[in-house]
Amino acid sequence: MSQIGEKMKLRRSERMVVISNYLINHPYELTSLNTFAEKYESAKSSISEDIVIIKRAFEEIEIGTIETITGAGGGVIFTPSISEKDARIIVQDLCAQLSESNRILPGGYIYLSDLLSTPSILNNIGRIIAKAFKGQKIDAVMTVATKGVPLANAVANVLNVPFVIVRRDLKITEGSTVSVNYVSGSSGDRIEKMFLSKRSLKAGSRVLIVDDFLKGGGTINGMVSLLSEFDSELAGVAVFADNAQTTRDHLDYKSLLKVTNIDVKSNTIDVEVGNIFDKN
Amino acid sequence: MSQIGEKMKLRRSERMVVISNYLINHPYELTSLNTFAEKYESAKSSISEDIVIIKRAFEEIEIGTIETITGAGGGVIFTPSISEKDARIIVQDLCAQLSESNRILPGGYIYLSDLLSTPSILNNIGRIIAKAFKGQKIDAVMTVATKGVPLANAVANVLNVPFVIVRRDLKITEGSTVSVNYVSGSSGDRIEKMFLSKRSLKAGSRVLIVDDFLKGGGTINGMVSLLSEFDSELAGVAVFADNAQTTRDHLDYKSLLKVTNIDVKSNTIDVEVGNIFDKN
Repeated sequence: MSQIGEKMKLRRSERMVVISNYLINHPYELTSLNTFAEKYESAKSSISEDIVIIKRAFEEIEIGTIETITGAGGGVIFTPSISEKDARIIVQDLCAQLSESNRILPGGYIYLSDLLSTPSILNNIGRIIAKAFKGQKIDAVMTVATKGVPLANAVANVLNVPFVIVRRDLKITEGSTVSVNYVSGSSGDRIEKMFLSKRSLKAGSRVLIVDDFLKGGGTINGMVSLLSEFDSELAGVAVFADNAQTTRDHLDYKSLLKVTNIDVKSNTIDVEVGNIFDKN
Repeated sequence: MSQIGEKMKLRRSERMVVISNYLINHPYELTSLNTFAEKYESAKSSISEDIVIIKRAFEEIEIGTIETITGAGGGVIFTPSISEKDARIIVQDLCAQLSESNRILPGGYIYLSDLLSTPSILNNIGRIIAKAFKGQKIDAVMTVATKGVPLANAVANVLNVPFVIVRRDLKITEGSTVSVNYVSGSSGDRIEKMFLSKRSLKAGSRVLIVDDFLKGGGTINGMVSLLSEFDSELAGVAVFADNAQTTRDHLDYKSLLKVTNIDVKSNTIDVEVGNIFDKN
C-alpha cells in the first residue's frame, strides 16, 4: 500500500506502527524480514524483535496471528482473525437488529440491505466468516448479484483473494459466459438461468460461496454446478442468514444468523445465532 | 473491532500497535484519549505520547492524518489518505492493465470485472477517490447495480459511511421504492427506469456518486435526479474510467482513468490518467 520501494529511517516505536500496518494491509502474504530491513534501514535482528512485539500485541487483542517462516525464502505472514468473544457479541447484536419488526416486508420477506451496506458491519462479518474457514485453501469467493456482492467483497477482502459475481441476467460487458439452470423459489417449480463470465474464474480454483439469505438453496446449488463447469471445487458455503422454516435438500453451510419464524400478522421475526460457531 | 469494553495492561510498544490498529479500523470517528487510557490501564499522558508517535509514523508513510481535538468531548480522529506519489503509481499501473488488448469485447466494450473484484486494487481505488473529496461532508456513497457495487463499497469503507445501491430492476426484497426515468445509451434514444429503496437513504444526506465506466452520463444523471427525490444533495461524482470519445452534456466528475481510443479492428485500447489529480 504505502512507500512503494521507498526507504526511510524510523525510530523503533514508529517502525512498529508502520510494520504492523503493512501486515494488516497484506494478509496471507509472505513478506521477508529483509524487505522491512531494507525499507526502514534497520538490522534484520531489530526487525525480528519488532515482529515479536507486534505478534504479541496482535495475539493479545486477537486480531490475528503472525507466523514466522525461517530459512531462505522465509518471512512473516499475517492471518486476520477475531476473538470468539467479539465474534459472538457482534452476531448477537446482528440478531437483535434483524429481529426489528419494521424489517418485515409484504410476503414475509426481510429487509436486509441496510446491514449489508454498512462497512463496519461488513468488515466484522468478513472476519467471522473467514475465521470459520480457517486453514482451508480458498482461491476465490463466489456470490450471486446483487445482494451477495458486498458480502463476497468483505470476505474476499479478509482472505485477500478475488471475488466472482454470478449474474441472473446477461450483460454485454461480461464477454463470453457459461450458464447453468437452477431451481428458483422454495417450491422448486421455477427453472431459471445464471451466468458467469468465462474469464472470471481460473480452472482448478477452490471456491467459497457466500450469499445473503438462504431459503430453498436453489441459488447455492446453481453456483455449485457452475463450479464444475469451471473445473473448480467447492471450499464451503457461508450465508448471512438462513430461513429455518424452509425445507431443503441436504446442503452443508455455515450461517451467522438463523431466522426461525417470520409472522407477518403479528409483525415479528424470531432470529437466533446460526451454526457458524458450532464445532464440527 | 477488538476487545469490546475489555481492559488489558500492555507494554508501550504493544500499546502503540494496538492503538494504531484501532484508529485504522475506526476512520473518521472521534475517540477520546480516556477510552484508550481506561482500556489499556495507562495514564492519559502516556496515551497522549503514544498518539504523538503514531501520528508521526502515519504521516511519514502518508497513510493518513491524526487530528487531536482538545478539551472536554475531545479526542483523536484518524483520516485515511494516500501519498500523491503512491496514488500516481497505482493509477499508472491501472492504466497499463486497462490497455491490455484482450480486454476488448465485441461492440467495443471493455472487460473490467477482474480489476473491480480484486480487494487490494479496490482498497487503493477507495483511498484515492476518498482523498479526492477530502474535507467534504459525505454521508453516503451511491452507485448503480451491479458493477458499481464493489467500487462504492471500497470508497464507503474508507469514508466509514454506508453505501446505497440503485437498481435497474425491481426486487421484492427492497420494500417500497422510488423510481426515476433516465436516458440510457450514448445516443440518448432509450428511456429506462431506475429504482431506490425508500428506506435506504435518509433525507438531507450529502451523497458521493461512484460508477465504474462513464459514457453518455445518463446513469449518473438518473442518480442525481434520484437524490432530489430523497431531498438529498450531490457531494460529487467519481468514476473508475471515462470514455473520452463520447460526447456528453456538462457533468462535473473525477475519473481515475480516461479511455481515449478503443479500436476493435487493431485491437488496441488507449488509456491515460484521468482528471483525479487535477487541482481545481
